[in-house]
Amino acid sequence: MARYKLTIEYDGTPFAGWQRQAGQMSVQEAIETAIARFSGETVVIQAAGRTDSGVHALGQVVSFDLSTERDPFRVREALNFHLKPHPVAVVAAEAVGEDFEARFSALARHYEYRILNRRARPALEADRVWHVAVPLDADAMHAAAQLILGQHDFTTFRAAECQAKSPVRTLDILTVSRQGEHVVIYAKARSFLHSQVRSMVGSLKLVGEGKWQPSDFRAALDARDRAACGPLAPPEGLYLTQVDY
Amino acid sequence: MARYKLTIEYDGTPFAGWQRQAGQMSVQEAIETAIARFSGETVVIQAAGRTDSGVHALGQVVSFDLSTERDPFRVREALNFHLKPHPVAVVAAEAVGEDFEARFSALARHYEYRILNRRARPALEADRVWHVAVPLDADAMHAAAQLILGQHDFTTFRAAECQAKSPVRTLDILTVSRQGEHVVIYAKARSFLHSQVRSMVGSLKLVGEGKWQPSDFRAALDARDRAACGPLAPPEGLYLTQVDY
Repeated sequence: MARYKLTIEYDGTPFAGWQRQAGQMSVQEAIETAIARFSGETVVIQAAGRTDSGVHALGQVVSFDLSTERDPFRVREALNFHLKPHPVAVVAAEAVGEDFEARFSALARHYEYRILNRRARPALEADRVWHVAVPLDADAMHAAAQLILGQHDFTTFRAAECQAKSPVRTLDILTVSRQGEHVVIYAKARSFLHSQVRSMVGSLKLVGEGKWQPSDFRAALDARDRAACGPLAPPEGLYLTQVDY
Repeated sequence: MARYKLTIEYDGTPFAGWQRQAGQMSVQEAIETAIARFSGETVVIQAAGRTDSGVHALGQVVSFDLSTERDPFRVREALNFHLKPHPVAVVAAEAVGEDFEARFSALARHYEYRILNRRARPALEADRVWHVAVPLDADAMHAAAQLILGQHDFTTFRAAECQAKSPVRTLDILTVSRQGEHVVIYAKARSFLHSQVRSMVGSLKLVGEGKWQPSDFRAALDARDRAACGPLAPPEGLYLTQVDY
């Protein structure tokens, strides 16, 4: 048996999300099908982040086993060939030890959320950003973000369907910066709850438009109540950019 | 009569190019149709750059006349409404004097060409970059680029169908830089010949892979012969980023 680690980029737009679902194409199914086509083996792959429909990845990491050892370079080339025409690309493949698990070995996950903050809707960045037409105060959003760093019960920023046993997570970094017409949010943690980043971004947007003060963002966290969360930010602005091991 | 200047962003992928063509959707037709829908007037718009099919714009500039004066803010909003679902967005609209002509008043045009230089094909940047799998030496490409600055007969880098009266142009800036997995070419001139940027990039790629020395790039220019040009770079990596007046 040989275990492989893949680093993967995908456009989440046409997929039902990471996870296999009957009757809808998922990123997982696209990759598992490509593995079967080149190796003849039926495998179940594990991913560091189970992204929702429409969410993108620049550095998703997956692991899987094959019965025989293969050159990782050949694995990458073969998978990229068989993944066509799906917008999924294997950017790196490595042989790893059998103690490596893409999901459970991860030490940190990095997400970026991109807002296009201008009147005109995106042309080149359609499906790649959240278009927010009202001007956002990125400095206020950043100030608010600093108020929820560290270990907390993130029930407020957790999807109803979240399957994690505990709502407690440790948020290491949450920054907001303006980059021209874009407002970019960056989040790092060992792990996130389901929809946690989109929930936090949706609430930060209320701070950005002045409907909330930064302290209201902290108060929402402290409420430990999903009802205290702002409207969920849409998936198309979110990118899983990196996973550390 | 009132003249307007628009700054426009578009994804060139679904269009037959800038210019109106029978039986195929062009960016020009999409915009002229939107103008007719909101104003009831049939106009012919003029553009700073007549981009080819598949070429993108972040800062294309167009001008046109309406019989009555309208608030530029309303012009922009109305056009963006009527441009849907085309991937075209009006990012700015201004009232200008009747001596302003988007094409002939332009003092400089800026283009960027983006190459994704890695083994794996693009997932998120499909149709947004030229995918070149062989490693490129961006420094050698940059050195070559510096050898053709200034005023020259650019016949080598001119499409056969180019309608310009003279092949002489003055190239102000041509730089090549590596930005992670990307190689980015930036070109600035008062005006360019048809396919000039894609012709130069196609030849610079030969320098980047070591098939040409930088001096071969200069020799190609001096040949003043289309046959001396490298294969044309594809349209999907090219962006008209800015026009100066």
